[in-house]
Amino acid sequence: MISKSKFIASTYLAVLMSVGSFIASAQQLNTDQQAQLNALKTTALQSDLSYQLIESLTTEVGHRLMGSEGDKKSIVWAVNKMKALGFDKVWTEEVTGSYWLRGEAKARIVAPYPHDVVILALGGSIGTSKEGLTAKVAHFETLADLKAAPDNSLNGKIAFVSYQMERHIDGDGYGPAVGTRVGGAVVAAQKGASALIMRSVGTDNNRTAHTGVMRYKDEVKKIPAAALSNPDADLLVNQLKRGEEVSMYLNMTAKTNAEVVATSANVIGEFTGSELPNEIVSLGAHLDSWDVGTGALDDGLGIGMVMAAAHHIGQLPKRPKRTIRVILFAAEEVGLLGAKQYVKAHKDDMNAHVMGAEWDFGIGRIYKMTPGVGAQSLNAVRELAQYLAPMGVALAPENNAKGQSDMSALSDAGMPSINFSPDGSNYFDYHHTENDTLDKVEPEALKVNTAIYTMYAYFAAQAMVDFRK
Amino acid sequence: MISKSKFIASTYLAVLMSVGSFIASAQQLNTDQQAQLNALKTTALQSDLSYQLIESLTTEVGHRLMGSEGDKKSIVWAVNKMKALGFDKVWTEEVTGSYWLRGEAKARIVAPYPHDVVILALGGSIGTSKEGLTAKVAHFETLADLKAAPDNSLNGKIAFVSYQMERHIDGDGYGPAVGTRVGGAVVAAQKGASALIMRSVGTDNNRTAHTGVMRYKDEVKKIPAAALSNPDADLLVNQLKRGEEVSMYLNMTAKTNAEVVATSANVIGEFTGSELPNEIVSLGAHLDSWDVGTGALDDGLGIGMVMAAAHHIGQLPKRPKRTIRVILFAAEEVGLLGAKQYVKAHKDDMNAHVMGAEWDFGIGRIYKMTPGVGAQSLNAVRELAQYLAPMGVALAPENNAKGQSDMSALSDAGMPSINFSPDGSNYFDYHHTENDTLDKVEPEALKVNTAIYTMYAYFAAQAMVDFRK
Repeated sequence: MISKSKFIASTYLAVLMSVGSFIASAQQLNTDQQAQLNALKTTALQSDLSYQLIESLTTEVGHRLMGSEGDKKSIVWAVNKMKALGFDKVWTEEVTGSYWLRGEAKARIVAPYPHDVVILALGGSIGTSKEGLTAKVAHFETLADLKAAPDNSLNGKIAFVSYQMERHIDGDGYGPAVGTRVGGAVVAAQKGASALIMRSVGTDNNRTAHTGVMRYKDEVKKIPAAALSNPDADLLVNQLKRGEEVSMYLNMTAKTNAEVVATSANVIGEFTGSELPNEIVSLGAHLDSWDVGTGALDDGLGIGMVMAAAHHIGQLPKRPKRTIRVILFAAEEVGLLGAKQYVKAHKDDMNAHVMGAEWDFGIGRIYKMTPGVGAQSLNAVRELAQYLAPMGVALAPENNAKGQSDMSALSDAGMPSINFSPDGSNYFDYHHTENDTLDKVEPEALKVNTAIYTMYAYFAAQAMVDFRK
Repeated sequence: MISKSKFIASTYLAVLMSVGSFIASAQQLNTDQQAQLNALKTTALQSDLSYQLIESLTTEVGHRLMGSEGDKKSIVWAVNKMKALGFDKVWTEEVTGSYWLRGEAKARIVAPYPHDVVILALGGSIGTSKEGLTAKVAHFETLADLKAAPDNSLNGKIAFVSYQMERHIDGDGYGPAVGTRVGGAVVAAQKGASALIMRSVGTDNNRTAHTGVMRYKDEVKKIPAAALSNPDADLLVNQLKRGEEVSMYLNMTAKTNAEVVATSANVIGEFTGSELPNEIVSLGAHLDSWDVGTGALDDGLGIGMVMAAAHHIGQLPKRPKRTIRVILFAAEEVGLLGAKQYVKAHKDDMNAHVMGAEWDFGIGRIYKMTPGVGAQSLNAVRELAQYLAPMGVALAPENNAKGQSDMSALSDAGMPSINFSPDGSNYFDYHHTENDTLDKVEPEALKVNTAIYTMYAYFAAQAMVDFRK
């Protein structure tokens, strides 16, 4: 048993030792730089620039799916904004792919109790025939249940997977739910189904369905795939529960415009480093969005934050040592096309990317940072964590981060990264829906998160440590 | 200054006196009846009958606008359910009116920044021409501002009123907002406008617009009228803020089917009183709904509650003294047509309606009751309030209640009533939208509220006091 006074004394000693060991290792930022870091924090916390950028993008451009008119407008918007924000260099790098057209999607329970229901085609899906299709519904609670169905058991039927995504602060409910969206149509087609309908991958109870990318396999018949809104999925389940046969009508005009190659672009801007201009600290977000809301959260938040963070640093009297590069990736939603193109185009200078972070998840405040860096730089990461701790950011014990979405492609190519984890509890209420609009942005959280990204980028550009693995 | 002991003594005395005066007045319920009241409370709190009724109505019927297929189905549904629930008598009373067809409604901001926006036609609106109309938008923050516009100043324009409804526990934000919906089109037309577009009367931030009834005047030109979802209203305001001219395209196919008289019915069921069968305690709700959600809240909640409350009382070994009558009114949404018809049909026995209450507002628990009764019966109302107090129900000091919605027509014809006020903070997130679906029902609040209605109806049927004014 430890007496209370002994316990206090030993705790005090441990704190002293911890502080001591931190002080003992060389600090990356000198006093002047720490003052500059604090000034940047104040600037970012008092600025609504990131919000204004999102307001401008969502009001003047709106949604911007790869290959669409909005996509083209967003590229012009981003280039002009970066120039207006004083970036030293601004350029675009072409990204090509295909243009998927959503068209119309209508669905109706026709028996036993007729109801119109709200659906959205999954991104990449084919349409139905012009007349649509009417078929009995075969219900599966999970993708695993669908996989377990015997071959040909779904011939002529609509497969319906009713799995409900769980709400988690870190968005971890997404993984178990999204498999049906990406791969469900292939599995359903292998069993003979005419179409796949799934409960939306979302945590809300709105009559707005959640779209998102799906995939076909060349060797498996393509069938239409759509997501039902959560209340409509409940209704369908409640009809099925009664034990009678349930049939649905489905009509979708979705198609991929195969005749033309769609062209988009990564939009890149940088503030050139004053001492090590060839070492790049990158800040990423994706410029494209799904074609239903205005992409205010996904990824307007990221666009606003990284452009504002770089701008704040660019307002300092002197550029930091390393270059700060903002990359607004094209075509993330349809398969990280912009990020993959970036890695391809920059394979010879990937080693110059000494640090990277993306914002592509969450609405609330950042509560955690997780590094993915060379062990030699962990002390520097701890120093950064100390600067960010007063803003509620904890340092995760792991050192395995790979950057979010687009940045994971760069991390796979060797770039060190830090992941910042925000409160994402309500993110999947709106994700990939018509409800992804400006009003969902939380201005105060956005200010804090922008300040954190500003401080992170400044630190990474000034700290003369090699973050690479 | 009062010493602490004196204060305690005087408080104690006041309590004694208060209890004394209560005991002194004759109690309406004897010990056996109080035990029965408590047994009914337990039954209702442990039963999910009201929920099951709403589930059945919304799953098997769905929406049910006056004159629609759903309206006809709901009448059959209600008659069958009442019979299955053991009502002593079940009948219908015909209600006639007109059938309004929503059709399609599409709108788009065409300049300066094109966006598709979400609208719903207001109930009763005419459509546009087949080609739709494109016009400049004239923005007004309130209906009063619109009224203040000079004559002819809106010639050829779309009038847009952006007033945002406030959120209140008692729904008091509705009054200041709903005037634009009901009368805005007439005012806009008087100023020369081609159409009225208004921010939805709702407190949510979903891309679902709120419909609801609107009125024309014979002497004023009819113009199309529609509600924008709140996020789309924000977007339109943000475009207008930039100072450039904003124009919109509007296409609506709404129309009133003037060729046929629509027929509906009030559905009425009762448990006949054992001693005073000609004295009626009525429980009301409305059977119709708007045609966009499934009417789970408006007024599925009321339907479930009043049918379940009457059923619970009907399960007692002996009927209470007075008759308990459930009235499911037709066509409330389009102007209390069922209630007005009921008053007309029952003008000769309106005096037999000795008490009434409706449920047509709120999702959360009841926190207040307000009587509208003869002064001679206020002691009896206080006794009821004492039974309900443990469930969180406070007795309001006023004695001016007129019953909710339909019941107000009966109150105007002389019927005494009690209003029960629930927590309606989130009611106008869903009211008159596609989001009025089963998942929005709060099962635990529903149980408590059903118990309160059960206890109220039992008390009013057993208390041998005259509630009439």
